[in-house]
Amino acid sequence: MNQLNIEIFDKPTRNLWDTICSRPADDNKKVMAVVKDIFAEVERSRDLAVQTYNAKYDKNNANNFLIDQEIIQLASNQLSQKLKDAIAQARQNIYAFHQAQQQNDLAIEVTPGVTCQQITKPIERVGLYIPGGTAPLLSTVLMLGIPANIAGCKEIILCTPADENGKVDPAILYTASLVGVTEIYGVGGAQAIAAMHYGTETIPKVDKIFGPGNQYVTTAKQYAQQLGTAIDMPAGPSELLIMAGKGSIPAFVAADLLSQAEHGIDSQVVCVVDDISLIEPIQKELMLQLKRLPRKSIAGKALENSAFVYLSDINDRIDFINQYAPEHYIICAEEEQFYMDGLTNAGSVFLGNYSPESAGDYASGTNHTLPTSGFAKAYSGVNLGSFTKQITVQKLTSKGLQVLGNTVIEMANAEQLHAHAHAIQVRLDYLQKSQSDV
Amino acid sequence: MNQLNIEIFDKPTRNLWDTICSRPADDNKKVMAVVKDIFAEVERSRDLAVQTYNAKYDKNNANNFLIDQEIIQLASNQLSQKLKDAIAQARQNIYAFHQAQQQNDLAIEVTPGVTCQQITKPIERVGLYIPGGTAPLLSTVLMLGIPANIAGCKEIILCTPADENGKVDPAILYTASLVGVTEIYGVGGAQAIAAMHYGTETIPKVDKIFGPGNQYVTTAKQYAQQLGTAIDMPAGPSELLIMAGKGSIPAFVAADLLSQAEHGIDSQVVCVVDDISLIEPIQKELMLQLKRLPRKSIAGKALENSAFVYLSDINDRIDFINQYAPEHYIICAEEEQFYMDGLTNAGSVFLGNYSPESAGDYASGTNHTLPTSGFAKAYSGVNLGSFTKQITVQKLTSKGLQVLGNTVIEMANAEQLHAHAHAIQVRLDYLQKSQSDV
Repeated sequence: MNQLNIEIFDKPTRNLWDTICSRPADDNKKVMAVVKDIFAEVERSRDLAVQTYNAKYDKNNANNFLIDQEIIQLASNQLSQKLKDAIAQARQNIYAFHQAQQQNDLAIEVTPGVTCQQITKPIERVGLYIPGGTAPLLSTVLMLGIPANIAGCKEIILCTPADENGKVDPAILYTASLVGVTEIYGVGGAQAIAAMHYGTETIPKVDKIFGPGNQYVTTAKQYAQQLGTAIDMPAGPSELLIMAGKGSIPAFVAADLLSQAEHGIDSQVVCVVDDISLIEPIQKELMLQLKRLPRKSIAGKALENSAFVYLSDINDRIDFINQYAPEHYIICAEEEQFYMDGLTNAGSVFLGNYSPESAGDYASGTNHTLPTSGFAKAYSGVNLGSFTKQITVQKLTSKGLQVLGNTVIEMANAEQLHAHAHAIQVRLDYLQKSQSDV
Repeated sequence: MNQLNIEIFDKPTRNLWDTICSRPADDNKKVMAVVKDIFAEVERSRDLAVQTYNAKYDKNNANNFLIDQEIIQLASNQLSQKLKDAIAQARQNIYAFHQAQQQNDLAIEVTPGVTCQQITKPIERVGLYIPGGTAPLLSTVLMLGIPANIAGCKEIILCTPADENGKVDPAILYTASLVGVTEIYGVGGAQAIAAMHYGTETIPKVDKIFGPGNQYVTTAKQYAQQLGTAIDMPAGPSELLIMAGKGSIPAFVAADLLSQAEHGIDSQVVCVVDDISLIEPIQKELMLQLKRLPRKSIAGKALENSAFVYLSDINDRIDFINQYAPEHYIICAEEEQFYMDGLTNAGSVFLGNYSPESAGDYASGTNHTLPTSGFAKAYSGVNLGSFTKQITVQKLTSKGLQVLGNTVIEMANAEQLHAHAHAIQVRLDYLQKSQSDV
């Protein structure tokens, strides 16, 4: 008996792949209605509305949600040295990898007298959302704060739910101050997103909002985007796909599947195998390890959304995986390079037996804010570029304009945009006149 | 008398800047309702729905909207050699600048045994929308098709409205085939966006949709984004800000303002000056040149949304311009470098007297698909990166995992994600055992 309720697909035909690749669906219409009300109220009453929702949803009755610098500085004392050392090592790796992503400005003379540049500038004001709940997500503070800091964002504000006394977990405060967050607000939920979108008396309006959250937060970010504030990416439940082949170790595969499954009951894990006999030992390990987990009820539920997929042809496996477009993708197989060469869609890839997803979640250096739900087909995970934008610049000399002028006039006329052509002609006439004047 | 109805702001105080920077607003609730109906219908009846809307909105009764390869090949004959030469020169510059934007893959060993990579992959399936109307926007075909082609997108489809016989303008067909568009469909409006979002029997589903359009098209793109298909960027009416200082030539400034104003009655142009006496000669030129324009009624209307802004302090001017965050930004002033150094927000910048906006619209090499409505604060214009995504990859050796293991365990425990810690521990135990076995 398969006590785990994980479906097994034995050589599924391609017409079944869409179904296997579908993610647990959610209907957010009701959530959107609540979010719209919160936005309207925050737009109207600003700080007062934020206070009201903090009290209503987080039982936080504090009327000042800007966390004092003094409290932030004292947070360090409340953390063990071991945790601080861990944060320091993670920070160093994340910093090194995101620092390496810096792009040089570009300048080329495309044709004599016509120079084009692409320059990179930080987004000036960014807002980071860090969820509350049972444990402080200090790793997400690193993942968002470090690239914001490297990019040179001028204002890096952070909103996170506070407790009933308006207090924020010291691990969040410590990590935030370490990575250069400029202000921390004890505000959670959709009201935090609304506040960063509109700005209030206390909380500044930002240009782009980052970070994970529950359904209210992610719907609020989606709504903020519709209203004109950029967001990092659309969000869905977290997921992992493992390609387990010869040489993979069942205990490791099971541990990785469970580490993803413990995130939430809507998480999804998929294990693709190149040999049907690999499934049983992984299942055994899953049952064994699941029992010992504090979050076993969550992980067990998540496994019900999950699947083993056996495909006998390696090209089919690659096609299936690209169609799934996993957020996290572990490759434990002898043909590692072949899988990498064929890869088109994934958020982040983990190679070999010693690269568990949790290494990337915390400390290997890559970012853990990644595209879920198949968004990896079109979106990158958060990276240094998420905190910058590119501006193009062009400069034509009078000679450059003369080289290009007739081309622009010809095309503008074809598009019946005569003022566009005229803006060239008026300059060509002027140049001709000044040349004949000489 | 100021016959032009352009407002003049003489040293406006900062509390007025928000108002001056506001763009012509539109309420798209009604449009969104129509768009949602079209999406529902296209999801349900697919090709049949597309045909119905083609007939309804474009009087196009053709029942096959895939344009034949033969017709595409014949399009070349219908274009003048002069226009083909112009397209060739524009293409060369756009190609050179976008080709130069290619990013090298990145690989660094962040710590001994821990290697992180960032690799760039094309978005597999992209859809380009090219509006119809009185003239074929062949320049937009270049601006979207060329980077899609350089990026290596596998499917590059193009939708554009067809005439009542299902025919598409030969200039569009010619340019599209030149830049490597794989399929062209004679479908316009929101139904084209819906078709590329859902896929129909004829039109494939795509991962990302690009291109300009009327309010129905841009609202449809926004809706497709909500439903999970990526889009290039949010869209609003086109706009231009000119910083005109000493050395600027009134006839050029006026011609550039008009070239932007002719786009549509909701276009906006703003002219910032460092000397109030510069305004009058520009106004005179505007009146003189406006009369001669075929699209003078459109341009005249657009000027009513527009403004001259005089600010005496150069830092105020820079702050104002950054707050406006113009889509197009022309700098004609002696302090060009100072303005560039202080620049934080703009789509594309044009430097000096011989760099009119229309050069960039067609042929200088930069992209003309740019963030409007202040979106330049957080968004880049379309560039090569718009057609790609980045995937991160990590590989830890057993040694690397041992170096990083305790850090991950410590942080995972702080976040109460014990399965995450366990995925490390199971490996550390295994390694210790195999070492002690030796």
